[in-house]
Amino acid sequence: MTVNDKLNFTMLCDFYELTMGNGYLDAGMGDRICYFDLFFRTVPDGGGFAIAAGLDQIISYIQDLHFGPEDIAYLRGRGIFSEKFLEYLANFKFTGDIWAVPEGTPVFPYEPLVTVRAPAIQAQLLETYMLCVVNHQSLIATKASRIVRAAQGRTVLEFGSRRAQGADAAIMGARAAYIGGCAGTACAISDQLFGVPAGGTMAHAWVQMFDTELDAFRAYCRTYPQNATLLVDTYNTLQSGIPNAIRAFDEILKPMGIKKCGIRLDSGDLAYLTRIARKMLDDAGWTECAITCSNSLDEYIIQDLINQGACIDCFGVGERLITAKSDPVFGGVYKLAGVENPDGTITPKIKISENVAKITNPHFKKVYRFYSRSTGKALADYLCVHDETVDDSGTIEIFDPDATWKHKEVYDFKAKELLVPIFQGGELVYDRPTLPQIKAYCAEQIGTLWAEVCRFENPHHYYVDLSQKLWDIKNKLLHERK
Amino acid sequence: MTVNDKLNFTMLCDFYELTMGNGYLDAGMGDRICYFDLFFRTVPDGGGFAIAAGLDQIISYIQDLHFGPEDIAYLRGRGIFSEKFLEYLANFKFTGDIWAVPEGTPVFPYEPLVTVRAPAIQAQLLETYMLCVVNHQSLIATKASRIVRAAQGRTVLEFGSRRAQGADAAIMGARAAYIGGCAGTACAISDQLFGVPAGGTMAHAWVQMFDTELDAFRAYCRTYPQNATLLVDTYNTLQSGIPNAIRAFDEILKPMGIKKCGIRLDSGDLAYLTRIARKMLDDAGWTECAITCSNSLDEYIIQDLINQGACIDCFGVGERLITAKSDPVFGGVYKLAGVENPDGTITPKIKISENVAKITNPHFKKVYRFYSRSTGKALADYLCVHDETVDDSGTIEIFDPDATWKHKEVYDFKAKELLVPIFQGGELVYDRPTLPQIKAYCAEQIGTLWAEVCRFENPHHYYVDLSQKLWDIKNKLLHERK
Repeated sequence: MTVNDKLNFTMLCDFYELTMGNGYLDAGMGDRICYFDLFFRTVPDGGGFAIAAGLDQIISYIQDLHFGPEDIAYLRGRGIFSEKFLEYLANFKFTGDIWAVPEGTPVFPYEPLVTVRAPAIQAQLLETYMLCVVNHQSLIATKASRIVRAAQGRTVLEFGSRRAQGADAAIMGARAAYIGGCAGTACAISDQLFGVPAGGTMAHAWVQMFDTELDAFRAYCRTYPQNATLLVDTYNTLQSGIPNAIRAFDEILKPMGIKKCGIRLDSGDLAYLTRIARKMLDDAGWTECAITCSNSLDEYIIQDLINQGACIDCFGVGERLITAKSDPVFGGVYKLAGVENPDGTITPKIKISENVAKITNPHFKKVYRFYSRSTGKALADYLCVHDETVDDSGTIEIFDPDATWKHKEVYDFKAKELLVPIFQGGELVYDRPTLPQIKAYCAEQIGTLWAEVCRFENPHHYYVDLSQKLWDIKNKLLHERK
Repeated sequence: MTVNDKLNFTMLCDFYELTMGNGYLDAGMGDRICYFDLFFRTVPDGGGFAIAAGLDQIISYIQDLHFGPEDIAYLRGRGIFSEKFLEYLANFKFTGDIWAVPEGTPVFPYEPLVTVRAPAIQAQLLETYMLCVVNHQSLIATKASRIVRAAQGRTVLEFGSRRAQGADAAIMGARAAYIGGCAGTACAISDQLFGVPAGGTMAHAWVQMFDTELDAFRAYCRTYPQNATLLVDTYNTLQSGIPNAIRAFDEILKPMGIKKCGIRLDSGDLAYLTRIARKMLDDAGWTECAITCSNSLDEYIIQDLINQGACIDCFGVGERLITAKSDPVFGGVYKLAGVENPDGTITPKIKISENVAKITNPHFKKVYRFYSRSTGKALADYLCVHDETVDDSGTIEIFDPDATWKHKEVYDFKAKELLVPIFQGGELVYDRPTLPQIKAYCAEQIGTLWAEVCRFENPHHYYVDLSQKLWDIKNKLLHERK
């Protein structure tokens, strides 16, 4: 069961996809095969790489694409669509091909994360939902990866549902955060639907509901002796919260021989309070009591807390993760790259712009990642035309597409294609990995990146180069349009 | 039909709501009546007020609250809940009372937007979904209101679905933006589900799909002569886009006697380009051709464009609206305010914190807004205990709860209660307004605010004062906890 099973998102499209569809049909171009790329231009937070996510939801969406009678009725009511187009939609079925980068893959600006080959009306219709899902989940997975790396092996949990931008942002955000490295979530439905481990203990209301804090802690330890994490900052962390927690542990857990327990702090100076708290707990013999902290954390605050010697075993990260607060937009776009002619040849298409950054890479492309055979590290990505093949038994010279004098000889490398077939002729041909598999793949692939690409400040600019053939085609199109 | 009709969000809760529920039942406190307030602490973007939104979705959620067999099975599988609790959930029905501020109301920090009176397990369960929805929609409505005010009467359309944080953020974000003042959206499903007017014409792909830009424009004008807005920046706005648009208008629209048409720019220096474009269009006789602009707009860029004399009739605002990019978190919280005793009296509850801003206002409260009878302007909001009544036939002295020496005498005023009954004994007692009614109410209520509260830079701090009785209770609780 997925969220997509319950809600059909076919109508989650920008209205212009429908006006264009109707127009393509009117102009006799509805069935013209075209190629679209989904790619992004900058990594959020000035980071060195992003994490691709959201493919599984796109697959569900494509499989469920259809216009029901209520959709057709709504569209007819708008009074601008031809009956021929409405009939086309009533019988709509996706018949195209889709390639995509597997979820969890580290990705870089200007390389396609998804390529669609389909009749114009179909390809155009997918734009908004695909962008929405890939942009959102890649944003959160990327942010989670940063936060998890900052925690240096300590546990990071996603706690942000209440501050998420709507229900889907909470549910899918927890999924994406898990891919990016979080160990679990507070969100129950994300566990139920996707198997993201959900946990949680108590809010301040629990403590307030009882006559005393100690009563509240005792009651919780009685009900959950195996999982007693007590929130200690409702009144005063050091003067009442921790002493009362120790007393409840002593009274209820100790006689049962239980050593594992926890406290959580949600306010105050976490560096100072957790050092004192650790000492108080240790002095009382509760050395296995874990300390969880929350309160507007992000990768920089976590880094800072660790540098200050804060004694924190687990970080609960809320709003700054679930909204990617410091840079809450993943700017993926979906652009036409080529049109297929009746003879099967492809006419490459480019979008030129006053803003140079908005110029696209034309044509139906392949994306290779080159890994060093000796270190296993990723050396560069390489975009080429679909009919080119990289021979990784020798050497290859690559060059920077912006600064073409920057050449680099790559040798002793293994080339791997990043885009894998997902749909062929409308049929799913991809073996969907499980969520734990995606998470593990993500961690493994981040391991192939140099530390210089992973750092937060001025990360190394990873090479995403064009083949000579692709570069020549792009230049030719640019000059033709001058 | 709403999104809520299709997806049951009962399980969209933080796991701790379930562990606490099970714990309350275990401690014999499951049926204890308690009061929770949903409120926020700061206005996003340093603004002077926020717009409350999301109530209609909360109503649908409450009406649909239930745990299905698959939910119970999932929870049983977690191995920590008693069968008694699972049985309670299987028979779950909301039986409490809810009061809320109507959608579209300008609201201020620390006043309840929603108050829940319900048995502990029930009241606790609502926390995450209610916060998620109110936080999200209030965030977007508030941002939309800022952007619309910056546009000074020009049309603002919401274009952000593709950059929204998931499907719900796109769909509900369009709804909230409409409440906040946007005239429409690009998102088709938000029109279909909620009646937010959706529109759209063409993407760059339309222009690229044809052999020439002129062919693309001609084809579009032929299919949509009444609604021909042409995207002019695919190749070169001034050298090809606008001349080709004028030619297509001349060839196809002019013979039909059509004068209304449009162009859209999505890149480049909008201030410069739109002034030239306006002149080119006017010189060609297309004085009724509207100019729409998009490209990472927000309230500050719009203000700046207008100051520069840009000739723009309509702003399409995407990612910076749909994610409230500059401040993407609306920090609403849900806090216990009181517990009802068997004799019907209420024991007020407070949450003290190391962070002073996190201290709550205790007790079951009323919220009044005082309007001047002579100007109609809002003078102050006033929080008091539920059994207090404000007599607005005389004068009332109010004081700042933080700086208590700041007194103000209010006279010639009309007092209006902001919290209205939504559910009583689990039954809906609220007549749900339509979305256009909510939008109109929002505009009208913003009209009651002084310009000093509405400005972006250093807005006037609107008074939200406590009654003497409420202030005394709060102080007593604070001192008891010392």
